[in-house]
Amino acid sequence: CLRDFYYDIFMCSLLCQCFYRLEVLFKNPQIHVKNPHLDTMEEDVLYHFNLGTKTHNLPEMFGDIKFVCVGGSANRMKSFAQFIQQELALPGNMDNITDICEGTDRYSMYKVYFLSVYPGMGVPSISIMLHELIKLLHHARCIDFALFRIGTSGGVGLEPGTVVVTDKEVDCFFRAQFEQVVLGKVITRSTELDVGVSKELLQCSSELDDVPTVIGNTMCTSDFYEGQGRLDGALCSFSTEDKLEYLRKAYNTGVRNIEMESTVFRAMCRVCAITAVVCVTLLNRFDGDQISTPHDVLVEYQQRPQVLVAHFIKKRLGLIRMIYFSFYFFHHIPRSLHTLN
Amino acid sequence: CLRDFYYDIFMCSLLCQCFYRLEVLFKNPQIHVKNPHLDTMEEDVLYHFNLGTKTHNLPEMFGDIKFVCVGGSANRMKSFAQFIQQELALPGNMDNITDICEGTDRYSMYKVYFLSVYPGMGVPSISIMLHELIKLLHHARCIDFALFRIGTSGGVGLEPGTVVVTDKEVDCFFRAQFEQVVLGKVITRSTELDVGVSKELLQCSSELDDVPTVIGNTMCTSDFYEGQGRLDGALCSFSTEDKLEYLRKAYNTGVRNIEMESTVFRAMCRVCAITAVVCVTLLNRFDGDQISTPHDVLVEYQQRPQVLVAHFIKKRLGLIRMIYFSFYFFHHIPRSLHTLN
Repeated sequence: CLRDFYYDIFMCSLLCQCFYRLEVLFKNPQIHVKNPHLDTMEEDVLYHFNLGTKTHNLPEMFGDIKFVCVGGSANRMKSFAQFIQQELALPGNMDNITDICEGTDRYSMYKVYFLSVYPGMGVPSISIMLHELIKLLHHARCIDFALFRIGTSGGVGLEPGTVVVTDKEVDCFFRAQFEQVVLGKVITRSTELDVGVSKELLQCSSELDDVPTVIGNTMCTSDFYEGQGRLDGALCSFSTEDKLEYLRKAYNTGVRNIEMESTVFRAMCRVCAITAVVCVTLLNRFDGDQISTPHDVLVEYQQRPQVLVAHFIKKRLGLIRMIYFSFYFFHHIPRSLHTLN
Repeated sequence: CLRDFYYDIFMCSLLCQCFYRLEVLFKNPQIHVKNPHLDTMEEDVLYHFNLGTKTHNLPEMFGDIKFVCVGGSANRMKSFAQFIQQELALPGNMDNITDICEGTDRYSMYKVYFLSVYPGMGVPSISIMLHELIKLLHHARCIDFALFRIGTSGGVGLEPGTVVVTDKEVDCFFRAQFEQVVLGKVITRSTELDVGVSKELLQCSSELDDVPTVIGNTMCTSDFYEGQGRLDGALCSFSTEDKLEYLRKAYNTGVRNIEMESTVFRAMCRVCAITAVVCVTLLNRFDGDQISTPHDVLVEYQQRPQVLVAHFIKKRLGLIRMIYFSFYFFHHIPRSLHTLN
């Protein structure tokens, strides 16, 4: 009868969701820390976060984290945390968000069920932060989370204000890799991508007003001036034509924006979490080098990656809620979702 | 007669000081900005400082700067500015020092006749800051100034708390050079040293209590964990023996400490000012990787480079005062010294 049919459909749906959940667990178990030496340490001091395994209860403080956003500036990451709290209608006073790293003043970190971190500028600065963040999430026994790098960038052949969801992170020779010197030897790590998330973010952008978005390659440099072919640094030994030729080469290989952290972000995080790089362009580098756009316009541009990622998180949370709702019959509702709303 | 003899001696002394002053001017004229494109720009926006040539009167704001210290952390550079104000008995309320870069939250900058700047961590971050700092000092028409990088580092074969005045800044292959990719090509810049200042700083340290100081090479890396051979990062693929072998090699080439900004600092600034790198060691890397020293001990260590550089500045100011005193008869007393004391 119709009632049995509906019951079968319902049970099938639950079963599918169980398999999906198991697949997610299989793909993204507890975060990988690829360092056998850590097991031999009695204590782990996360020096630049001013946190430690003996001085802080990391599972209690961070165990419910499902999303981490890094990038921007200290103030922007604070306002992003407040924005997310508002968007998800989370409890608590938005004005009272305190900086977890306040004691060290190296980084800024805000937690409102998700984690919002300012990693400083450039590969070395974000690299220190990522080492300690990955260890933090490992010690806190976090599972199934997504990591986003959001921020600003220089556009290559794009209208200022365009959001670029990164397809491939490339170095200044347009190679999808990150090079690092370890004990005097150069090692190379891939910045291989997660196509699914990029497409999902592009889909999210189509559901939003005023967040023009494209998918493109992002070039990561170790300098803002000479390293990005700018003519307005304190040192410059090349001509306008040299600069334009380099930018044209970059454009032809698929580069649509330039920033300073993406390769190491992807290289370090791709093995332990879903990752995405989402940056807004503040200018079109074919038209100039100086960022002289009015402050209020820049502020609006800087909010676009936040709006896009917030929309993605809301959608993902809805999906996860449905799965957990089914699981409720068999198991339990995890703490992170108990406390939502 | 004796009166004529004294008069001749006095005139000789003035003449010598004139020649010395001309030599200083010849060696260190107004800061070099090696970029012909800057002359064609109507406005220069120093984006990461939130300053600009049209929006700010840079000569009035910064024209009297004679010493610039970069490094440390934001809070440390603020307290250093307050310390210098106290040491030089400068007028003004020490509690009211405001961050000149407050509007941007990328860097922190405090001015009390000298400039104290926090440049973030790593080569890319300090490189952006140096480009804008050199342009700032150029636009402000500063002459005859000294630039210091002060901060913390990991020691190599030294007691924790030892201050290292850098002899040569070397990369992670122990070469005294800084490599940068410009328009897809690797360019190399020398980190050639100014021996005189290092020896003068060592002499200063001998006049102070509790500032044990050595001269040695400083290795600059692009990563704090794997890049410095640490075993406690999120990723580590080498053994304890591999690490110790690398540190021994470094020690044998003269490396006494490891940090993350010195090569680009020297490479960019050596042509435009007297420079010195002064860092305290927080641990001996042969003994371990984690910085677990008690907070109050670390705070005392971190003050040592500040105390040493403050002593150097005080001595130099005395010397400069004498020269300017002679010049008073011929010319004028520059504004920066008019207002001192």
